[in-house]
Amino acid sequence: MRTYASVPFSDVTITGPFWSERLETVLARTIPSQLEKLEQSGIRGSIKLPKPLPPLTIPRQSNNFTVQYFWDSDIGKWIEAAACAISHRRDAAIEAEIEAMIDDLEAAQQPDGYLNCFYIEREPENRWTNLRDNHELYNLGHLLEGAVAYYHATGKDRFLSVMERAMDHVAATFGRGEGQKRGYPGHQEIEIALVRAWHATGKRKFLDLATYFIDERGNTDGVEHYFDIEARARGEDPKAYWFENYEYGQAHLPVREQTKVVGHAVRAMYMYTAMADLAAEHGDDALKAACEALWRDVTEKRMYVTGGFGPSEHNEGFTKDYDLPNDTAYAETCASVAMVFWAARMLNLDLDGQYADILELALYNNALAGLSRDGEHYFYDNKLESDGSHHRWAWHECPCCTMNVSRLVASVAGYFYGVAETEIAVHLYGGATATLPVAGGRVTLTETSDYPWDGAVRIALEPEGTRTFTLSLRVPGWCHGATASVNGEALEVAPERGYLKITRDWAPGDVVELNLPMQAERLYAHPDVRQDAGRVALRRGPLVYCCEQHDNPAPVNRLRLPSDAPVTARHASDLLGGITVLEARAEAEDADAWGGNLYATRRAPSSETALTAVPYYIWCNRGQTPMQVWLQE
Amino acid sequence: MRTYASVPFSDVTITGPFWSERLETVLARTIPSQLEKLEQSGIRGSIKLPKPLPPLTIPRQSNNFTVQYFWDSDIGKWIEAAACAISHRRDAAIEAEIEAMIDDLEAAQQPDGYLNCFYIEREPENRWTNLRDNHELYNLGHLLEGAVAYYHATGKDRFLSVMERAMDHVAATFGRGEGQKRGYPGHQEIEIALVRAWHATGKRKFLDLATYFIDERGNTDGVEHYFDIEARARGEDPKAYWFENYEYGQAHLPVREQTKVVGHAVRAMYMYTAMADLAAEHGDDALKAACEALWRDVTEKRMYVTGGFGPSEHNEGFTKDYDLPNDTAYAETCASVAMVFWAARMLNLDLDGQYADILELALYNNALAGLSRDGEHYFYDNKLESDGSHHRWAWHECPCCTMNVSRLVASVAGYFYGVAETEIAVHLYGGATATLPVAGGRVTLTETSDYPWDGAVRIALEPEGTRTFTLSLRVPGWCHGATASVNGEALEVAPERGYLKITRDWAPGDVVELNLPMQAERLYAHPDVRQDAGRVALRRGPLVYCCEQHDNPAPVNRLRLPSDAPVTARHASDLLGGITVLEARAEAEDADAWGGNLYATRRAPSSETALTAVPYYIWCNRGQTPMQVWLQE
Repeated sequence: MRTYASVPFSDVTITGPFWSERLETVLARTIPSQLEKLEQSGIRGSIKLPKPLPPLTIPRQSNNFTVQYFWDSDIGKWIEAAACAISHRRDAAIEAEIEAMIDDLEAAQQPDGYLNCFYIEREPENRWTNLRDNHELYNLGHLLEGAVAYYHATGKDRFLSVMERAMDHVAATFGRGEGQKRGYPGHQEIEIALVRAWHATGKRKFLDLATYFIDERGNTDGVEHYFDIEARARGEDPKAYWFENYEYGQAHLPVREQTKVVGHAVRAMYMYTAMADLAAEHGDDALKAACEALWRDVTEKRMYVTGGFGPSEHNEGFTKDYDLPNDTAYAETCASVAMVFWAARMLNLDLDGQYADILELALYNNALAGLSRDGEHYFYDNKLESDGSHHRWAWHECPCCTMNVSRLVASVAGYFYGVAETEIAVHLYGGATATLPVAGGRVTLTETSDYPWDGAVRIALEPEGTRTFTLSLRVPGWCHGATASVNGEALEVAPERGYLKITRDWAPGDVVELNLPMQAERLYAHPDVRQDAGRVALRRGPLVYCCEQHDNPAPVNRLRLPSDAPVTARHASDLLGGITVLEARAEAEDADAWGGNLYATRRAPSSETALTAVPYYIWCNRGQTPMQVWLQE
Repeated sequence: MRTYASVPFSDVTITGPFWSERLETVLARTIPSQLEKLEQSGIRGSIKLPKPLPPLTIPRQSNNFTVQYFWDSDIGKWIEAAACAISHRRDAAIEAEIEAMIDDLEAAQQPDGYLNCFYIEREPENRWTNLRDNHELYNLGHLLEGAVAYYHATGKDRFLSVMERAMDHVAATFGRGEGQKRGYPGHQEIEIALVRAWHATGKRKFLDLATYFIDERGNTDGVEHYFDIEARARGEDPKAYWFENYEYGQAHLPVREQTKVVGHAVRAMYMYTAMADLAAEHGDDALKAACEALWRDVTEKRMYVTGGFGPSEHNEGFTKDYDLPNDTAYAETCASVAMVFWAARMLNLDLDGQYADILELALYNNALAGLSRDGEHYFYDNKLESDGSHHRWAWHECPCCTMNVSRLVASVAGYFYGVAETEIAVHLYGGATATLPVAGGRVTLTETSDYPWDGAVRIALEPEGTRTFTLSLRVPGWCHGATASVNGEALEVAPERGYLKITRDWAPGDVVELNLPMQAERLYAHPDVRQDAGRVALRRGPLVYCCEQHDNPAPVNRLRLPSDAPVTARHASDLLGGITVLEARAEAEDADAWGGNLYATRRAPSSETALTAVPYYIWCNRGQTPMQVWLQE
């Protein structure tokens, strides 16, 4: 079933201004400052075994769970982000830090391969007793992803070897064999890492272990639910579980029977990512069908217009269909980062522009909003409306989002292309160079554009001699009236499921030009999204916009965009490093004329005002400010 | 400063259909069923000392606080509600139950007067060590209110004597004298009860103790904050307080310095009630000014259109100006009940229709919604919008609201009139007979009307001979074009601050007729109430309306009321016991035509539909259903 393969980030060079600037910021500012925060908060220190850990300063919660259980994952994600970043520009100091961390991890690893800094130091007798809550497998997943990324970036395999020993231990511990535990992670993640390791090494044991975890999850066919078994073994009542039922970690049903997105959003997205991976690996139709049902459910009923998910803080996750509050939106950065992962896998499974559209939406909006322009401040939750009280954090007591967004930005090159036997699919634009395998040889693609500000894309091809293959260029769902040419000769643009497919004998020097007109557009929500009723959002190209108070003379919560007001785009090269803003005439109710009452029998009079909107991803980079995505219309 | 006195509920007989039906329901259904629930949940059992309490089944919360600490208050409120109810129609069985409770309380009371069933039974050594959290004074307040009500209803003073001994103990324990604790309640309430006891008995010690509690509250002038002192004495860090600062209980500042409504809404409303009482008792201008500032703050910035307060579940209280979410509104029933108390005191302090308007609004809408038509189901929180998941409870683990709403309904007669030396003020209409003291004699007023369905009011006066006094008839703020006559002779209606003042020599047989036209009106919220932007609410007379799904063919969340659509009233005698509904033509977006997408570049098409709205107070009496107060316009 697998028709397309991802291209590792290390095989693609970002050259365009938009992502180059972000990559450089991550490399120069984010990675070093995150290292500093890891050290300040004791997370980095925690892998320097056998030195004792600092005392626990964060109190245990009522479920006897402390945030430190998942510190190893932060190390793994930092290494992954740093590895991706240095693949674009090697940095000896960062590489030395990674090596030092690997030294520590190697020293900490137990003779049997077990690796978890918290348990080794504090509760060695309790390892593997609480998969439901305590993140041992999740941590190993992130460390393994770090190891794979470091291997891609540098060719060095020492960390990968450490993690291979850890995975061998996991594979010996968990499974359906005699004496094995039939467990699986409480927080999915390791499944993704194992597939990555399989792709990087070709060692089938990684794939087999991922397959076991996904297949066994939620299984109660002839066995007791694993989380019940281990709760009872700990002397706990399984029914006393904090989140009431196993929907929280999507272990309430075998994965192939799941059709509704439920529970913790990041767990869900990681699991769906692995399901799509394994559907492709095994040609598993049931798994593919489950992925498709879940995809429809989240994108048709439970997704913010910014590509965020999971409105509720309570479970960091999903609630009900069409329940998408703006001012209390949780819409965790990690969840949208993970949506990029999932969408990329769906594209590999089935080249359909609907997947690329959501990949792009999540990437450029909810996910990218998570990282500040200065590269050192973060959004954990991404509200779509703020009265000015929401703001970026310099760090977070659970710093998962900080390194999730940095690893995404640092690895963005890995989402540009998909390759098949005789086809190259271009999913994203923005300036990139890559040499890709196709039709038995290699071709260098040099794509130039000022995307996402402008939809004019130029791709120069340099195949090894003339080669026959299909170049599949994504025509985004938001685009109307795309035009294209090859060597100056116009093509009919009739995309197949979102991709313009050009099959020909490609020769060195061929040039494809694609023009994707970007118009400012109004978006409306389904009539059952209560919070958006009577409201309108603005989009141009892949970017969703918002109104910040900085740019608007009237309070943004009072802005009303007349339904007949033209919305125009203007590139403001002096604003926030150069962004395209949207402008329109608008109205705003006048509270001064309203008087002191809270309610009245007449509306407040409105007066005309100007409305300026900026891309959502860049909001809150000029200090705290009121912000509004959905405007009254 | 005090110009008006309340008239006890026991001096007024309700005769009109609206309140008679509610009173009868409370007497026949609510009071007995609440007693049953009190017994089932062990609350009634808990006062049967010295028999040991049943084991604690409700787990301690992380702040080491169990809900059972405030069970005595539920007994007090039940007695108060029952006493009010039997003053309208004596019921021997209910009276016997009250007497049995008084037997138990009398037996439980300690030789020094201390009375708290939880502490006496479980932690006698810890009494008076945690006023901040543990409700000893709050409980005593409710018991004292129960004792005063029972005295008014029956003339029996045994319970009042028990509570007087308890108050003597409190007065000996707390105060500024040598060896006394300078404490005050964590949950205000006893202050109201003490003023009621002072009015009922004329014993000044009750007034003095109330005055001390209000004056000492939040005092740090030369002393440490009392809640800090007692926290440290318990070996706790005062900074570890669950609610972070003392705004939660309005003990962050001396009360005269408070200008913003903050913290727990019920605590706040009870305190403001007592402040207004004491401002009147002492002619205390500073206290009156604080009441007025707090009144403006809540009514101009923090009140739902239904007369509810406190949007947040987190602190059961106030958040920010103009923050009034509809679907997550907490708007606790108790808070609106307490608003009726406060508004009544403000009216005594200063006869201004603005206070009566809010009294009426809170009473007929948010407060009355708390009790079902069958008298046995309750709303604790009062949302203004529901997707169908919100519903009434048969009981609540913290049953405070259940008996707060029943005691309000049972005592509603006490809010109809205010009396001064030569003036009778009529605040509410709806059919009532009362014999009131005025101008050195007594006058019997017989008011008949079908209020709140109809604004035609007739008042027959029977003074003891001819007497000169002012009859002040409230002309509600919502009313336009009121007319009036005395003995058929038309009067000019020029209300002074909301009251039409008719001064004359009144003779037996005089009849006043007042007509208060009730039109269906549209209400709009201040432009900074984000959640109501672009929306409209409907009101007729004192009643705010809502759309329930039962009466509307289109989903209520999709209803859009055109700004030019006439809204008409129709009395539906067969619906819910006879209510006036509002009807209009409306539009609704068609989701079927929208397709499966969550977002689109065009609005869904709308089609015409009919809209029917019912009074908010009566919603959710026909099963769970979607409901909407604020409609799209």
